[in-house]
This record gives sequence, structure tokens and C-alpha cells, in this order.
Amino acid sequence: MTNRDTIQPLLDQRHQSHHTVDITRKRFRRCKSAPVGEIAPVEMDEIKNDQSGPRSKSILDKLHPSFRKVIIYLVIYLGIGTICFYFVRNKIKGKKIDGVLDSIYFCVVTMTTVGYGDMVPNSATTKLLACVYVFSGMALVGIVLSKAADYLVEKQETLLIKAMHMGRRVGPSEILEEIETNKVRYKCFMIAAFLIVLIVVGTVVLARVERLDTIDAFYCVCATITTLGYGDKSFSTKAGRIFAIFWILTSTLCLGRFFLYVAELNAEKRQKEIVKWVLSRRTTNVDLEEADLDNDGVVGAAEFVVYKLKEMGKINQLDVAAILKEFESLDIDQSGTLSNTDLTLAQSS
Amino acid sequence: MTNRDTIQPLLDQRHQSHHTVDITRKRFRRCKSAPVGEIAPVEMDEIKNDQSGPRSKSILDKLHPSFRKVIIYLVIYLGIGTICFYFVRNKIKGKKIDGVLDSIYFCVVTMTTVGYGDMVPNSATTKLLACVYVFSGMALVGIVLSKAADYLVEKQETLLIKAMHMGRRVGPSEILEEIETNKVRYKCFMIAAFLIVLIVVGTVVLARVERLDTIDAFYCVCATITTLGYGDKSFSTKAGRIFAIFWILTSTLCLGRFFLYVAELNAEKRQKEIVKWVLSRRTTNVDLEEADLDNDGVVGAAEFVVYKLKEMGKINQLDVAAILKEFESLDIDQSGTLSNTDLTLAQSS
Repeated sequence: MTNRDTIQPLLDQRHQSHHTVDITRKRFRRCKSAPVGEIAPVEMDEIKNDQSGPRSKSILDKLHPSFRKVIIYLVIYLGIGTICFYFVRNKIKGKKIDGVLDSIYFCVVTMTTVGYGDMVPNSATTKLLACVYVFSGMALVGIVLSKAADYLVEKQETLLIKAMHMGRRVGPSEILEEIETNKVRYKCFMIAAFLIVLIVVGTVVLARVERLDTIDAFYCVCATITTLGYGDKSFSTKAGRIFAIFWILTSTLCLGRFFLYVAELNAEKRQKEIVKWVLSRRTTNVDLEEADLDNDGVVGAAEFVVYKLKEMGKINQLDVAAILKEFESLDIDQSGTLSNTDLTLAQSS
Repeated sequence: MTNRDTIQPLLDQRHQSHHTVDITRKRFRRCKSAPVGEIAPVEMDEIKNDQSGPRSKSILDKLHPSFRKVIIYLVIYLGIGTICFYFVRNKIKGKKIDGVLDSIYFCVVTMTTVGYGDMVPNSATTKLLACVYVFSGMALVGIVLSKAADYLVEKQETLLIKAMHMGRRVGPSEILEEIETNKVRYKCFMIAAFLIVLIVVGTVVLARVERLDTIDAFYCVCATITTLGYGDKSFSTKAGRIFAIFWILTSTLCLGRFFLYVAELNAEKRQKEIVKWVLSRRTTNVDLEEADLDNDGVVGAAEFVVYKLKEMGKINQLDVAAILKEFESLDIDQSGTLSNTDLTLAQSS
């Protein structure tokens, strides 16, 4: 319960060796039980599942649960849309090729907000139906599909970094550290590469299948992935529309993610500047007074960490207050520290 | 340097009064010098400016610096676009009314990716120009304009909450707490209200100025704010296009922000569930061992806070390691705690 006679191995280590980096590494490896939310965001059901023992493994279960859900949502959403617009296909004017295919194509062009205008609703009912469909489609793309895209990118990222380190021997903690440091950069890089592939494939297919010249094909690709969709060039053959269904969904999603990741990269850069500024800022007596959480006149390592994290804006006082409340309820003997004795007392009462 | 003889006011307070909420409040009020990043995101230049004394105050300076920048970027971007498309106006086919107005209207319809298709580029050069313009427009809307929208919403939010509390006497810290707890909810609420106003205004103007019936006007509003832009209904009068320039920019931005805030609200809900789960989870001896940052055999309040924050995924080990390194460099007498003596020593050396 007192600190006087206890050794401070943290600082003794520094005595023995001046390689602070090693100490940091060691600390990094130690932290295993605390899940790092940013690396692998876990769903609440997963946490619960993990505790309730091993799960049954069907083929569907091998997919990420939220990813499986996403595919089911997408199929249901497209299914309902296709059935609705198939029944009112006479109230939609424009270039038609094949009943069901046209309906799916119209759904995809609408939900991604590309809206070429090569097929447009032509009665009050179909117009309102299209309005409902585009709003719900935006919500689905924005909330559900984007999450799935993030998940896929992050999974690929881990594989990419593992592959990059095949040559030299590195432990899982080094990979973890590497991912954590350059996470957003890798995400940007990967989505950009994937986007280039999608643009090239789109241009080639439009040139071959839709018989557009290269400039027009590229122009149509740009107008589509940005969801601009002027509609002067669009998919008007059967093969083209089948390709379009998959390609439009993927490419619009990818470009959206690309811009998001670039914004994230900027935010991270600014955040790093703030961290650097907070750490390099001269610590004053006023800071020490503020940082002294237990009012004992000195600032311990952990108190300093909490204070600086608050200053960096990573956490706020409400987070700290909630945890302190929990701490106080666990600290049965009111010594200001938690020991095994406290836990035994807390769990027996 | 020892904790044995020092009083632990934190826990003594609990002795004297059992109103833990009061203690939390008090702690909340105490934290004034540590800027809470989430409430008022401060630009790096601002921090530097604040330290370098009072600034000169021109009219432009009264605006938020990043907001001023946004308006300048937008004007420059629209200006360049208008000049470019004005010079190639013969290579753009579609319904034209007035040279310069058409060019601005075309720029806005393109940069927001509405893309009605009522005016489309008609040569290789204009097509490629439109491609460049839509990509840069997306970046501008996504990164710069959205930030400005967030800033405006947050500013309005503070005013709203202040107005709501006009009746009862509350200190600035209570308002701060209120904002922090329900921040995202208020943001959602405000943007939804603003969106409804924009939809109503848009429908009325389209019905009156463009002489569309109500269903068609509403359909065109929906097709525009979602950036669907089929193009079967669009702005084709001079007054309509002048209105469109401002209305399209505002309403597309608002709907985008609305979906983002809803997603944020969901994320926050999930985050709160995780926090609740982490706090209600039974603390074990293994946890204590992991949480013990300075390896003294017991876990202090701040150590517990750092451990739980890590478990919640709010911070990661890299953040902690960087701050610990700074702590060690400040702790000149290597006592494991920072005191005024350490600071004097550190600053004299």
C-alpha cells in the first residue's frame, strides 16, 4: 500500500541500460490482454461469443459476421428494389434491353446516386419510389457497405505487411507496431491501387463492349465513379449492363473510401503535430498541479500519461471520471491503490 | 517521493461525503488548462498565435481562420472553373440561357456530382476538363467544405445549448459537460432541421419558378440533394439557375453531413456499450498485473485509468510509450514521480 520500499523497475531498467527504445518495445509486448480497439475493432457480439466458448463453424460463419450481414442486406435491398421496379417497368421510360436486368441496373444506378438518366421514372408513383430508394440506398452504402469495405481493406493490409516482412524475421508485435504506425498510409496506398485497376478495367470494357472511343470510355468511367452520371454516355448493351451492376457498386464505393482515407491521413498528420507539440511543450508547475490526480503533491508516470492524453485531446474528463468511479468502488480498503486484497474483498462482498 | 505520509484527498473526499457525482463534477471543473480537443478542435497556428500574444483584428480575422480559407478556396475554384468552361462554352451542348451564369451552374452541378446532364461536354477537351473538375471538386467538397460545415454546426450547437439553458443558472462547465455528452445527438438534430428547411425551400422554388407540379418538384429536390441527378427535371430558367447555384451546394453538403452524423451516432452508441462492458467486467489479478505501469505491486488510480482506456480502445500502447519517454526525460532525480524539484533541475540543465 506504500511506495516507499517498493522498487521501481521501470526506472531501474533505465539505470541499467540507456536504450529507452528497448524498454518501450518491452512494454509494448507486455500489453496483451488489453484489446487495442483501433487495430481490430471487435463487435460486441464477438466479445460475448468469445467468452461463451468455441462457436460452431459453418461456411457462413467463416466470413466475418458483420460482412456476412452486409451481403445479406445488399441482396435483400437489391431484391426488393428489382421486384418493385420490375412491376412498374412500364412507368419507366428510356433505353430498355431485358426486364429483370434493366431493373437491377436501374437499382444500382439509383442507389449509388450515379443517376445517368438513361432510364427515368415516368409517373408519380415511380418518382416517389425512386426517391425512397435513393435515400435508403445512400444510407446502406454510407453505413453498411462502407464498413465492409473498411474491413476488407484492413484484412488485406495485415496480409500485405506480413508479406513485406517475409524476408526478415519479425515477431507479431513488430507487425502490430508497423500496422499501427502506418495504418492509414497503407490503407490509402491499397485503395489507390485498387481504384487504378477498376478505372483501367472500366475503360477497357466500355471501349470493347460499348464500342466507345478511348476518351469517351475514360470520360464515362470518371463520370460514373464520381457518381456524376451526366448520362450522355452509359451502358446500353446487355453485357455492358451486367458488368455495370458489379463495377458501379465497387468503383463508387472505392473512390468514396479513397477520399475518406486521404482525409484520415491529413487528420492523422495534424494529430501527430499536436502530439509532438504537447510533448515538446515546457512542463510548468501549474501543469504538475493539474496533473496530480490523487493530490499527493507529486505526479506519477501514469498521472503524467493521463494528463498529457487529455491535453492531446485523445481522451476527455468524462472518460476519466467514469473510470475513477469504478476504481473507487473497487478500492475497498480505501488505500488509494488496488491490490489483490482489494479484489478478494470486492468479490467476496 | 513516497506516498505513505501523504494524504489522499481524492479518497478522503469520499470519506466525508458519499456523493461521488459531486467529486466527479469538481474534477471536471478543475481541468481547465488541458484543452479538450474534441470540444474545440484547435488549429496548430491558433495554439501558436495564442502564445505569441494578442492578434491584430481585421474583419477577416474575426471569421474562423480555416473558415475564411474555405471561402477563398471555393471562390477561386468556382472562378477558375467558370473561366475555363466559359471559354469552351461552344463545346458544351444542352439548354443554355446566359453565358457566365451557365458556366457557374455547370461548375456547381459538376463539382457536387449532381450531373443532371442538361448540359454536357461535347468535345475531347471539355470531357477531360470535366473529369479533372469533378475529381478536384469532390476533394474540395469532401475535405475543405465539410470541415467548414462541421465548424458551423458546432458553433450553432453551443449557441443552441446556451439558449436551452437560459432559464436555469448553469456555469460554463455544465454547458461543456452537456455538449460533450450529447454532442453528436445535437449535431444530428440540427442538421436534420436544416435539411428539412432546405427541402421545403427547394420544392417551393422549383414549383413556383420552374413551374413544376408538387410531386415533380419534390422528386427533383430528392434527385438533387442525393446527387442522383437523373436530369429529366432540372433548373432551366435564369432565376432558377441563380437559386440552384447556392441551394445545390448547401443541400448536397447537408445531406452528406446528415448521413455522417447518423453514422457517428451509431459509432458512439457502440463505443458507449464497449465502455460499459469494460467498466462492468470483473477485474482479475491478471488485470492488476498488466495495469501496474511502474511495477510496484499495486495499481494507483491513474494506472487504472490508463489500463481501462487502453482496454476501451481509446488509446494505444504507442501513445502511452511516447508520453512515458517524455516523463522519464523530465524525471531528473529518477524517483518515479515528478515534483517541482525535477522541473527546476530539468530547466536549469
